[in-house]
Amino acid sequence: MSSSHRLIKALTRQPVDSTPVWFMRQAGRYLPEYRQLRQNLGSFLAMCKNPEIACQITLQPLQRFDLDAAIIFSDILVIPDAMNLGLGFKENEGPFFAHPIRDKAAIDNLPIPDPEDDLGYVMKAIQLMRQSQSAVPLIGFCGSPWTVATYMVEGKSSRNFACIKSMLYNEPTWLHSLLAKISLASCHYLHAQINHGAQVVMIFDTWGGVLANREFSEFSLRYMQNIVSYLKSQVLTCAVPIILFTKHGGQWLELLAATGCDGLGIDWTVDISQARERVGHRVALQGNLDPAVLYASPERIQTEVKKVLAGYGHGTGHVFNLGHGIHPEISPEKVQVMIETVRQYSLVYHQKEKIYAS
Amino acid sequence: MSSSHRLIKALTRQPVDSTPVWFMRQAGRYLPEYRQLRQNLGSFLAMCKNPEIACQITLQPLQRFDLDAAIIFSDILVIPDAMNLGLGFKENEGPFFAHPIRDKAAIDNLPIPDPEDDLGYVMKAIQLMRQSQSAVPLIGFCGSPWTVATYMVEGKSSRNFACIKSMLYNEPTWLHSLLAKISLASCHYLHAQINHGAQVVMIFDTWGGVLANREFSEFSLRYMQNIVSYLKSQVLTCAVPIILFTKHGGQWLELLAATGCDGLGIDWTVDISQARERVGHRVALQGNLDPAVLYASPERIQTEVKKVLAGYGHGTGHVFNLGHGIHPEISPEKVQVMIETVRQYSLVYHQKEKIYAS
Repeated sequence: MSSSHRLIKALTRQPVDSTPVWFMRQAGRYLPEYRQLRQNLGSFLAMCKNPEIACQITLQPLQRFDLDAAIIFSDILVIPDAMNLGLGFKENEGPFFAHPIRDKAAIDNLPIPDPEDDLGYVMKAIQLMRQSQSAVPLIGFCGSPWTVATYMVEGKSSRNFACIKSMLYNEPTWLHSLLAKISLASCHYLHAQINHGAQVVMIFDTWGGVLANREFSEFSLRYMQNIVSYLKSQVLTCAVPIILFTKHGGQWLELLAATGCDGLGIDWTVDISQARERVGHRVALQGNLDPAVLYASPERIQTEVKKVLAGYGHGTGHVFNLGHGIHPEISPEKVQVMIETVRQYSLVYHQKEKIYAS
Repeated sequence: MSSSHRLIKALTRQPVDSTPVWFMRQAGRYLPEYRQLRQNLGSFLAMCKNPEIACQITLQPLQRFDLDAAIIFSDILVIPDAMNLGLGFKENEGPFFAHPIRDKAAIDNLPIPDPEDDLGYVMKAIQLMRQSQSAVPLIGFCGSPWTVATYMVEGKSSRNFACIKSMLYNEPTWLHSLLAKISLASCHYLHAQINHGAQVVMIFDTWGGVLANREFSEFSLRYMQNIVSYLKSQVLTCAVPIILFTKHGGQWLELLAATGCDGLGIDWTVDISQARERVGHRVALQGNLDPAVLYASPERIQTEVKKVLAGYGHGTGHVFNLGHGIHPEISPEKVQVMIETVRQYSLVYHQKEKIYAS
């Protein structure tokens, strides 16, 4: 079995020879070759919008490491950028919007982007990746409507989420209108990504974990559910595995699994063994090494990777990953140790499956 | 029954007439009278270190609102300040230490502060509070050793916790030495607070939720357990209710309840009804309105407060609070609505108890 299939098999809980491995932000700032390119080319957004460069960056980690997936180099905020909110990135401060959403009129006036026209650069990058030498599956992605909305309403990264939570509690119908629009745009966008060659899609719900328990269902989960239901109802997209990842969403795994998605990302605060007991008969689990483990010595990294593998235990359904994006200051040598440890020490957990998988 | 006893009764799960209410950061920046005082007196730390001022600030919310507790105006970082790390506060950036902990020698050289000598200003403020007209119980507090250590090692607020997690994974014995010292200092400190008049104590574990599941037990919970066990073993302190609060610790409520504490703070991401099912036969629960609800209209605040009350349901053992500190931009009028709603709508949940409580 080639590694190009290992990710798909694990996500659909078919037998595999070893645990597939990739990691969030694997194409990014911790790589010297990425920083080099960025120095020459300028802004992060300009790189996202240049399909050749985006493809080149997507390939960078694959040229260094024995990974089981590529993830297209892009950003969750390209949808609101295509809605004309004026996306920019400030060094060390993160994204901002020139025209944040603050009233009903602004929501009503938002266009639904056409993925082919308005986000054609992402489609082109996906096509280029599929024409490349890469033999591993390509993951497409978008943000969850709630997470994307937080940036659109706050206008930037936030600690308190004062603006969007004011809207949530004072004008919930406005927020639902906004979320419905982002959700519809995301359905079209992921559909198009699959059409152009994405073989797995992932929805990043980075800020679902700041919602109160009841509000998580109403304002985040519901709209991820919409996207999952849409993709599962379309002939083109119904067989493509979908991964949902709510950071700090450990207490909602059952709800997330019930959406009909194929895999759940889990952060490092979750015990993977307990998570498997709770939902592992319904979905694959992706995670969940603390990204900060990569500050440790190679020996300690090995120990911690082995704990994650042992935590999931025997059988398919595990995609090894970090519990969140890699930190920019991590050295690639540490990543190498993590990946080699997964390769070497995951074999034992799949020995019985080999008979079927070979 | 006077409101001065309501908090203690709820924490020890004795019948009450209505649900007691106080809230985190109730003495602070959202109050115009606090901002006025601060403008005249300068730094936050200088105010903490002036017992008359600290007492005055502690009293401010009680003069406005019908609250069931006072919490001494102070900061979790006074212990490392007393360890000579050079605490300061930068406007809008939070705390920093002039001499962060980065090696074993720095840990070995840390003194254990004497609460009477080195933190006498806190003791004096507590005494002044007990001599004041306030009729409600006074809560003393400290940070959890893990949370305090994050600031001591990072030197400031952090997003990635790179320095302390490097220490955790590379030099765990150093970190355990540090945590043991903070824990010992905290035992002495809370003991002294109780000696001077604190009637409840609370341990704030603001950053326990950034730890991986296994590491939470080893590096945060264990040291909170040490403090609880110490206080419960001392004649002076054994009857004083202890509240533990790990933010983003919803998945660890059983572990926290098993420490022998009396109450658990829960943040707004936790369903209070489920939390009660899980641990409510062992501990009281304190929380858990999303602080962002206070951006909403009075009507919506009422609705959300009622949901929290109904979520806990009938019987004693609930202390109404926010799920985290109040945001500085909230208007006091909104706080008034919250408190009045608790007063009015919690009565029904205690009607059967009244027979015993009256």
